[in-house]
Amino acid sequence: MKTITSVFLALVFLTNVGGAQSPDETVEGIRQDANYQKALVYIENDHSRFVEELIELTEIPAPPFKEEQRAQAYMEMLRQHGLTDVQMDEEGNVMGIRKGNGGPLLAVAAHLDTVFPEGTDVTVKREGTRLSAPGIGDDTAGLATLLSVIRAMDDADLRTNSDILFIGDVGEEGPGDLRGMKYLFREGPYKDAIRMFVSVEGGRQTSITNGALGSKRYRVTFKGPGGHSYGAFGLVSPAFAMGNAMRKFSLLEVPEDPKTTFNVGVIGGGTSVNSIPFESWMDVDMRSEVRDELDELAETFIGLMHEAVDEENAARSTAQGEIELEMTMIGDRPSGETAEDSDIARTATSAFNAFGLEPVFRISSTDANIPISMGIPAITIGRGGMGGRGHSLDEWVDVEQEITVQGVQVTLTTILALAGLVQ
Amino acid sequence: MKTITSVFLALVFLTNVGGAQSPDETVEGIRQDANYQKALVYIENDHSRFVEELIELTEIPAPPFKEEQRAQAYMEMLRQHGLTDVQMDEEGNVMGIRKGNGGPLLAVAAHLDTVFPEGTDVTVKREGTRLSAPGIGDDTAGLATLLSVIRAMDDADLRTNSDILFIGDVGEEGPGDLRGMKYLFREGPYKDAIRMFVSVEGGRQTSITNGALGSKRYRVTFKGPGGHSYGAFGLVSPAFAMGNAMRKFSLLEVPEDPKTTFNVGVIGGGTSVNSIPFESWMDVDMRSEVRDELDELAETFIGLMHEAVDEENAARSTAQGEIELEMTMIGDRPSGETAEDSDIARTATSAFNAFGLEPVFRISSTDANIPISMGIPAITIGRGGMGGRGHSLDEWVDVEQEITVQGVQVTLTTILALAGLVQ
Repeated sequence: MKTITSVFLALVFLTNVGGAQSPDETVEGIRQDANYQKALVYIENDHSRFVEELIELTEIPAPPFKEEQRAQAYMEMLRQHGLTDVQMDEEGNVMGIRKGNGGPLLAVAAHLDTVFPEGTDVTVKREGTRLSAPGIGDDTAGLATLLSVIRAMDDADLRTNSDILFIGDVGEEGPGDLRGMKYLFREGPYKDAIRMFVSVEGGRQTSITNGALGSKRYRVTFKGPGGHSYGAFGLVSPAFAMGNAMRKFSLLEVPEDPKTTFNVGVIGGGTSVNSIPFESWMDVDMRSEVRDELDELAETFIGLMHEAVDEENAARSTAQGEIELEMTMIGDRPSGETAEDSDIARTATSAFNAFGLEPVFRISSTDANIPISMGIPAITIGRGGMGGRGHSLDEWVDVEQEITVQGVQVTLTTILALAGLVQ
Repeated sequence: MKTITSVFLALVFLTNVGGAQSPDETVEGIRQDANYQKALVYIENDHSRFVEELIELTEIPAPPFKEEQRAQAYMEMLRQHGLTDVQMDEEGNVMGIRKGNGGPLLAVAAHLDTVFPEGTDVTVKREGTRLSAPGIGDDTAGLATLLSVIRAMDDADLRTNSDILFIGDVGEEGPGDLRGMKYLFREGPYKDAIRMFVSVEGGRQTSITNGALGSKRYRVTFKGPGGHSYGAFGLVSPAFAMGNAMRKFSLLEVPEDPKTTFNVGVIGGGTSVNSIPFESWMDVDMRSEVRDELDELAETFIGLMHEAVDEENAARSTAQGEIELEMTMIGDRPSGETAEDSDIARTATSAFNAFGLEPVFRISSTDANIPISMGIPAITIGRGGMGGRGHSLDEWVDVEQEITVQGVQVTLTTILALAGLVQ
């Protein structure tokens, strides 16, 4: 009987999602549910296990492109949590399905990778409720949050209309260039199936990321013949070509709105102080809230690089060879926006409001960039709790119970509101 | 009896050096010597071993400050060549004595270090008689030349009035800042003993370096507050300050005569593509044949660096801190001159003339800078042979037999003329 009842209610709910029921009403309906209330209590009681798993996962290193050890551990956890179709895809993402009633597939992800290189000490240090270790907040706490959510749903027997795909994904951080998401949405087994996407990452639940900040990144290398600084003086120099290129780049004017930015990050090249370098290089980052601005900036930038090379080849001798330009794209994150009045954005807002949180919308570069750029409703929400110093060796989170538990509860509520609680 | 005769002749020779015998007469005397003629033939027959050792030594990496592997190998070679007091000094120079009759100590050096960093492929590529590899000419060919000279002297039983200290020295190239020579002449076991110095380095024997080319070298560091490339966009950037500085530097005009040069060698800085760097740095080399020109260039350069910093602090926000300039002198090679009519310069010229070579005097920055600046008679002579593209990855030498052999023979003759052949 229960099954039949559920299916019946699910159909009612489906009608409401598309029609009369507002996001606030949907969330209010969830809050009235006795099993949901039971799930909230479960999350409170689950706090110490959440902390244990957070520590366990944090202490498994997951450098960019080397997430496999943590991925295997997380995949095993997903399996133990009773998900079905648990698997690692070819890019290294791990995932499993929590079956619902076959409604539109909701994917919920936290990322496995950290920014820290191999050999970084990832031992968690504890002072009271403050835990510090590289990567503990970004995004290991997100991974631990998903596990607690699954347990709460199971304990309280919460069924959803949508199937939910829980994911621990690879390659969110810089050099990964969203490779996990790119594979998931463009090539993986669920590439055409995902209808909604929520990434759980970052700290306090004060904002919802609905805008995908686009970026283009290049390694620009200036190559030349090199030579002795004294004996070969007068030959073209990659360093001087690059200095000119950096100068031109620095003089660019970009709009404040839509916010558009450019940066020379890392530079290098040269073999010794008394040699004309045979190559000089720089890594460049350009971003914009709006795709056209970013494309225009990138085009201008490429033109300036060529100008600088031409000017160096004209300024000094090319008798031993010219300066040549090599540009390699090292990052390409699409931009886009999930409308603030879209169902997914409004529903998440209602879920946050239910806990007294008033999130603002913002634009950032997260896993959600990929589905957003493809027109799939997608947002990134914070995992809640307190933390700081992300991307630094003294990254920390505070696992003080009340605020940490609330973070998991907000995440649960958002997921239920999107997936549709079958009541 | 032989020993007594040698000592007797040595005394005669000594008298001549200080008095009646001209450098031309000294060299002519050597050319008449049957054993010397035997040594010249030996060098011809030794050619293939010279080439083998050149390849062997070239393929032992010797980056600045990391010459030890090559130094150990060369020290072992010096030992196998029967030198005495073979040792490595505390700076890393390796050396050994070929005993003479106790005349004024002649030091003959080639340098061990190359300009190429660790990890550079130093495999020798051969096309006919053309060998190419980083460092093969500068100054590995000098090291190989000294070995062939020692063998020829031994084979022909050539004895000299002076003891000869053969040296493979460290730190000749850029960052080494002549640390090998500074130690040898200022602190090492022979610091007050060396009366004449010949450095064997560089290619064709068309010139004798009697002037020490002065240089000033700086590590210029631009420091700033750093920050996220997007979130903190608009803050001052050390990379942009440095780009502007490089650009200004590249536009400088310097005289061709006296030859005056400038270079940006190695650059670096930055932590990630999406961070505004907190520092960017460059290593700069300036040289001039004339001290006043060098001083003026250095002063202009320092002014430009400040200008670039001021312009960056005016162009972008200093709300989180200003760009600051840090300049560290990393090289300061004294200039000076061994007189063209000094005994050492005239003697070397006569030795060159004996092979039909008419060397011109020139000014350069070599190991001889240090003794020259101390008033010790010192020159640098080419090792002979053909070569090119020094300090570039496609550095090459041609080991065509006739010209290569002549290079070694000229070196032998110069050494004998300076050390005094005991006949």
